[in-house]
Amino acid sequence: MKPSIPKGTRDFSPAEMVKRNYIFDNIRSVYQRYGYLPIETPSMENTETLMGKYGEEGDRLIFKILDSGDFFSEIKKEVIDKGFEEYLSIKPNDLQQKTPIEVLKYAFAMAQRNAVINATESFVIANGISGKALRYDLTVPFARYVVMHRNEITFPFKRYQIQPVWRADRPQKGRYREFYQCDADVIGSNSLLNELELIQIIDEVYSKLGLSVTIKINNRKILQGVADYCGCSDRLTDITVAIDKFDKIGKDAVIQELKSKGISEDKLEIIFDCIFPTEEDYIFYTKEQLINFGYRSEDADIEIRNQEHIYRKDLGIINCLDDNFRDSDNINIGLKGVEETKYLFDTISLFQLKSAKLEFDPTLARGLNYYTGAIIEVKVNEPKSTFTGSICGGGRYDDLTGIFGLPDVSGVGISFGADRIYDVLEELKMFPDSASASTKVLVVNFGEEEENYALQITRKLREAGINTELYPDIAKLKKQFSYADAKRIPFVITAGKDEIAKGIVALKNMSSGEQYALSLAEAIEKLS
Amino acid sequence: MKPSIPKGTRDFSPAEMVKRNYIFDNIRSVYQRYGYLPIETPSMENTETLMGKYGEEGDRLIFKILDSGDFFSEIKKEVIDKGFEEYLSIKPNDLQQKTPIEVLKYAFAMAQRNAVINATESFVIANGISGKALRYDLTVPFARYVVMHRNEITFPFKRYQIQPVWRADRPQKGRYREFYQCDADVIGSNSLLNELELIQIIDEVYSKLGLSVTIKINNRKILQGVADYCGCSDRLTDITVAIDKFDKIGKDAVIQELKSKGISEDKLEIIFDCIFPTEEDYIFYTKEQLINFGYRSEDADIEIRNQEHIYRKDLGIINCLDDNFRDSDNINIGLKGVEETKYLFDTISLFQLKSAKLEFDPTLARGLNYYTGAIIEVKVNEPKSTFTGSICGGGRYDDLTGIFGLPDVSGVGISFGADRIYDVLEELKMFPDSASASTKVLVVNFGEEEENYALQITRKLREAGINTELYPDIAKLKKQFSYADAKRIPFVITAGKDEIAKGIVALKNMSSGEQYALSLAEAIEKLS
Repeated sequence: MKPSIPKGTRDFSPAEMVKRNYIFDNIRSVYQRYGYLPIETPSMENTETLMGKYGEEGDRLIFKILDSGDFFSEIKKEVIDKGFEEYLSIKPNDLQQKTPIEVLKYAFAMAQRNAVINATESFVIANGISGKALRYDLTVPFARYVVMHRNEITFPFKRYQIQPVWRADRPQKGRYREFYQCDADVIGSNSLLNELELIQIIDEVYSKLGLSVTIKINNRKILQGVADYCGCSDRLTDITVAIDKFDKIGKDAVIQELKSKGISEDKLEIIFDCIFPTEEDYIFYTKEQLINFGYRSEDADIEIRNQEHIYRKDLGIINCLDDNFRDSDNINIGLKGVEETKYLFDTISLFQLKSAKLEFDPTLARGLNYYTGAIIEVKVNEPKSTFTGSICGGGRYDDLTGIFGLPDVSGVGISFGADRIYDVLEELKMFPDSASASTKVLVVNFGEEEENYALQITRKLREAGINTELYPDIAKLKKQFSYADAKRIPFVITAGKDEIAKGIVALKNMSSGEQYALSLAEAIEKLS
Repeated sequence: MKPSIPKGTRDFSPAEMVKRNYIFDNIRSVYQRYGYLPIETPSMENTETLMGKYGEEGDRLIFKILDSGDFFSEIKKEVIDKGFEEYLSIKPNDLQQKTPIEVLKYAFAMAQRNAVINATESFVIANGISGKALRYDLTVPFARYVVMHRNEITFPFKRYQIQPVWRADRPQKGRYREFYQCDADVIGSNSLLNELELIQIIDEVYSKLGLSVTIKINNRKILQGVADYCGCSDRLTDITVAIDKFDKIGKDAVIQELKSKGISEDKLEIIFDCIFPTEEDYIFYTKEQLINFGYRSEDADIEIRNQEHIYRKDLGIINCLDDNFRDSDNINIGLKGVEETKYLFDTISLFQLKSAKLEFDPTLARGLNYYTGAIIEVKVNEPKSTFTGSICGGGRYDDLTGIFGLPDVSGVGISFGADRIYDVLEELKMFPDSASASTKVLVVNFGEEEENYALQITRKLREAGINTELYPDIAKLKKQFSYADAKRIPFVITAGKDEIAKGIVALKNMSSGEQYALSLAEAIEKLS
């Protein structure tokens, strides 16, 4: 039998584990720095907890789980067998004393029972009535967790969660059926300071990883404002779906699509001039004006033109939307979205992000329906990267726990895709060299006579906190050194008869080739 | 909808996560200290990788996974629909131009196709042909990993793996359907130094956790020796199953069971006198004899009787078995087992374990069939603990990878049951108080006017490496202090108008109640 693993899943070898842990440790330490606490939820949730939360497509991608029979055997005993008790009490041996008609009746009853069992089993299994499924993301299990544990939780509740999720996606490059999500959410607080902190967290994580990114911000309330402005408040989905296509089909085609659905052309033209400004619509500021505004050139997507003019797309768009919403009636939700977004940009401008660029992007929609306020998406901003997808995303949802019986609890959260970050860092060769080996020193095994000395050395090195291996087999020196090489162990200790007689060790630095004759205490000092 | 989670699964809240991570971190750090490197394998394995490896009972407890239809839709397209191509090309509208007979033929073909699809789908699903299942342990996936990655691996390969496993066990107290295993294995080395190291690792982990344990050792070769000695070499399973019952049914009943299976009574009596010595059979040593033997009173299960005699069950049994095996013909395997076990005890006697007691237990069998040499099981040795199960186990397996096409690779490993360790430490209240909080200081939110000052303080505290929260909402002071209390945050900073005017902060120690007026730099120093 030639072994293999399911499509879309992966093994992680030690070299990959070190790199993955580098990503996880960075994210975890930033989450903790901001006061988020860890939780874990089971891999399996009840099917009803998950179904209907991710749209039709999502439901299809949920992996269902079968018990190997124990659920079914209960049904069998309690439901089916009760109907055949009369016959089940007959032992096959008893049949010899029965009449032919009685035997036939028995045989018929047994055949009937088997048919019912088979049909029931197929039905139970085909309908996933075992009732369990692998989690599809961390947000819905978290909402379920909050509702179940609401009496133990102190709100606002800041939790992070780093666990795998499973999706029955068609396997393809960069898409896995099992992958880790690294989520942080605050639940039970309406304050925009939470959004602010999440943006700072994103900036800090990517700064630590040395990766240049653009954080795109939008607000579902602004999208609603656009819909209200165009006089089609109930067509938010049509509008966002169309706007979302802008990158691919362009402004005119977007307008065409919406016009064909009966949305007023005039209003569309006006509002789309804000959302998709052409060169002429750009708002230009001098450097001084911008500084007065509280912005600095490092803040976001700023271009210097003609040496003195600075173009700031973000602010231009926000102000344009703001003006148009104000000139119209009843765009309160849209104005609230503008106000929230301005607050975020204004407050962040007091800080100077470490390395991320912040961008207002009114075409950002994000698929998940539960978002109701700010939405966030992060793109790689490295010229050499071929990666175009999002490497972090999130937003505010006003009522995620309502479906589980706890209404009016607002939450906001983000999720890092560790696998995508891994792929980007790997492509750009940005993983640090350090921490590629976890063993510091290999003690060579010379054989039975030298074994005790080697064992004592090994023990003392470990007690001194040094990660140490004793080569377990009696093998040629060359083989033992190759082993150290292959595992990138930086030091090797040899202690043969000479060293034992003198009570010392020979310590070799594997990269420089230098060799020292040292007391064990000296060797420990050198290795610490 | 009232949310719940599947039976036998659990949520882990922050307080539990801290304790669980305390256990995992301890185990991980010891594994790394001994040169083991981490790997991870997918949660799902192909069903054929798992089935048949854990016995009939094990097979039944494996959770199978269903794709939501995509595997089946491939079958449908490629196999079933091909047989109906002629009819599938007809569009329902075309039927109006057909003769009644043609329409009937079409209807019949479609009905036939639906019946075939339904039957096939039930069959595929009922037989788990989706082909994926959740892993049942970490050993079999590891063997699969070694075979698949053999060309990248440097042998001997020392790996550790800390991941959840799933079993469809009937849920009951202390038994979970999802639980973590923490495994370490060395593969590709026959040296007994590996067994030695694993015993040291067990000792070190439990010493770090402060838990007193007994490490029981046996060797499958000794059990084979007992079978050979009784003249029934091919009945190893009968013999070990019977010996395994000793605790429950006693020596006489064990002998009776084996006699009834035709095993020679004389030989049984002799060998069982070794395995289950009565008081009269104990071998007594003076303290001096024991020291000469290389043992010290701390080593293992030693009793002092009459102030001068020391009873050492282990050594007595081993020597007794050794003598009897030697007096007989062809008990080579048994003698090898005795020799290996003596080597382990002799070598460990040079070390002095940190806190574990080592015990030779010839009645230890361990269920898994793949063990072929040393077997290890660890019991809690705390008088106050009510826990009787095993909290770590392992052994040597000579040919685990053979089934995947890589024969003659010997391995030896252990597995810590983190959940059981958790339950024991919780029962005995042995978790340390430290690290129960992860946030060091809460900055109080006074409102909009004070917000910028609070934001700047918060940022600088975090930059100084201090885990800091800014309370996100504008709330009463009492509520904010309760929040710090509930989350066990040890310090609170308040910075109202007075402090802002002076450019200072007020720092409160939550447990002592002391309060200080400090510059931010001073506060950072106090918190670091």
